[in-house]
Amino acid sequence: MSAADRRDRLAALVRERDADAMFVGDLVNVRYLTGFTGSNGAVLVHADGTAVFFTDGRYQDQAAVEVPDLERVITRRILDEVRARAAGTLMAETHLLAVDAWEQLGRPHAAGRLVEGLREVKDESEIAALRRACAISTEALERLLSGPLLGRSERELARDLEWRMLELGAEDKAFDTILATGDHTAIPHHHPTDRVVRPGDLLKIDFGARVDGYHADCTRTVVVGAAADWQREIYAAVRASQAAGVERLRHGVPVPEAHAAAVDSLEAAGWLHAFTTGLGHGVGLQIHEDPFLGPGHPSTLTRRTVLTMEPGIYLPGRGGVRIEDTVLVTDSGPEVLTTTTKDLMEIA
Amino acid sequence: MSAADRRDRLAALVRERDADAMFVGDLVNVRYLTGFTGSNGAVLVHADGTAVFFTDGRYQDQAAVEVPDLERVITRRILDEVRARAAGTLMAETHLLAVDAWEQLGRPHAAGRLVEGLREVKDESEIAALRRACAISTEALERLLSGPLLGRSERELARDLEWRMLELGAEDKAFDTILATGDHTAIPHHHPTDRVVRPGDLLKIDFGARVDGYHADCTRTVVVGAAADWQREIYAAVRASQAAGVERLRHGVPVPEAHAAAVDSLEAAGWLHAFTTGLGHGVGLQIHEDPFLGPGHPSTLTRRTVLTMEPGIYLPGRGGVRIEDTVLVTDSGPEVLTTTTKDLMEIA
Repeated sequence: MSAADRRDRLAALVRERDADAMFVGDLVNVRYLTGFTGSNGAVLVHADGTAVFFTDGRYQDQAAVEVPDLERVITRRILDEVRARAAGTLMAETHLLAVDAWEQLGRPHAAGRLVEGLREVKDESEIAALRRACAISTEALERLLSGPLLGRSERELARDLEWRMLELGAEDKAFDTILATGDHTAIPHHHPTDRVVRPGDLLKIDFGARVDGYHADCTRTVVVGAAADWQREIYAAVRASQAAGVERLRHGVPVPEAHAAAVDSLEAAGWLHAFTTGLGHGVGLQIHEDPFLGPGHPSTLTRRTVLTMEPGIYLPGRGGVRIEDTVLVTDSGPEVLTTTTKDLMEIA
Repeated sequence: MSAADRRDRLAALVRERDADAMFVGDLVNVRYLTGFTGSNGAVLVHADGTAVFFTDGRYQDQAAVEVPDLERVITRRILDEVRARAAGTLMAETHLLAVDAWEQLGRPHAAGRLVEGLREVKDESEIAALRRACAISTEALERLLSGPLLGRSERELARDLEWRMLELGAEDKAFDTILATGDHTAIPHHHPTDRVVRPGDLLKIDFGARVDGYHADCTRTVVVGAAADWQREIYAAVRASQAAGVERLRHGVPVPEAHAAAVDSLEAAGWLHAFTTGLGHGVGLQIHEDPFLGPGHPSTLTRRTVLTMEPGIYLPGRGGVRIEDTVLVTDSGPEVLTTTTKDLMEIA
């Protein structure tokens, strides 16, 4: 699907709401609708599907390459130019647009999360980028885990992993790697420190590669050496929960049902009290995007949605386990894109 | 200066405007006022200097460490909790705050760029972090330039430089490295490609390290091999312009005067038509922040401001030169923090 197709879909939503045009100034949504990757740009999408792109002089050449199919207005006064071209009822993303810009546009109507809604269902080019980001992430992790691990610091291992992703063709890391050892694994979003890996440590790695703007998100937890019984127990509980959750990532399944599958599994194992984070989220041009997995979500899952499933158990002062995959909802069920084994790895 | 001192200064501005409190939800400004580094937080600063910090459950432990001196409200409904605590006239950052959040807060008054204004003048801890970020950047660049360069790709050299900064203690790169070779150097914000360095190439590197949230920003352009006459000519013009600009980065100098010093130099050399970017910007917790150097800026420069000076000449299809330093305005004049030589380097 081309950017023009995406804009056509948005234009249909604009017509449904009896509006004449929609202003999109959020850079992620602008990229989705136009292909533009610079740091200042906006697009005005009219109800008839035509659109105008706006940026400043720094991006004149880049916009000509990235947005060849649209009229391009090069200006330092984007909002004034938009207002001059927006006749009739204008909508805007009031959940993202700053108040001053909204005033300058003449207080357009709230559009809601229209573009975010479109972005939930990925097209072929998006799925290809996500597959590549996940494949690079998987390969980089497996190379890192081939060792050595003992005696290396969290910071050093995180840097090593990020370097491997770049070498394998990632344009960047998807986010700052969360790499924790020993009791640090109990902290869900730990920042890597100079603590070194010791025998018997849990090693938890939450990381991903970015390819063409699309993010991978994967977590694996391993034991360095032989696993203790308590480590085996929480690992097994998280693994069962994660598998139960992934199994329900299917077209037509209500989001609360997929959420409950993973949570009920943790509860049955007696560990729900130790699960303190979100269970999963959409992933694409943003590392966290719609849909967010929760018990109150009003929708059902749709084919071509890509999202994470990431239950965990966190025991302050002892350690924690999280297992996370990036998963594509296909017509025939969930397809795990981050394919590193989820068998408990005990790495000498 | 502690976060409490910063909040006291903000409270004085709140009182000056006859308001009772200010809501700050922009994460950079929240970090400046509280020390909090998470991805969801806000602070309500009352006119009497007291303040309340808000975040969600994910950051409860982190907030206890980073924001030990404030009352902390842990909630998923930050805006409702703020509104319940904000009696009287409330101000907010309407240039940053989204419309829906503003409505939820009861349409607070526009505060303007109060926190950004405070951030222009750095305190000791900020200057120390900027010094360290600049020192790491300088050392990493000098190691990279010690070679080899020939035959290596833009992408490879950029990754190498970023890796060296991390090894030297940077927490991250300050921004995606702009590394361009040959005719790519004519593109001001080029993304590194697989083009390899060839004899006679210009090599332009715009990069920096981040330390404790503070950004360094430096550009050097070298010639790989012996410089051609046209390369020498534009290098000399940019160097003279940059030196003239840096010389005027002094306490009390009107911003337009510093701007004119660099621009007039380029004009006198006959190259102003080939200078197509901004001349410089403040740098600190953001890579681009107030003050932005321009001919219409209403203020004078203040001691302890840190900003860049980065004129350039860009000749499409041939090549370009940019020289950029991060500079601290001291009582005794400009102090260049990015100390790599600006003599033309011809690197075999």
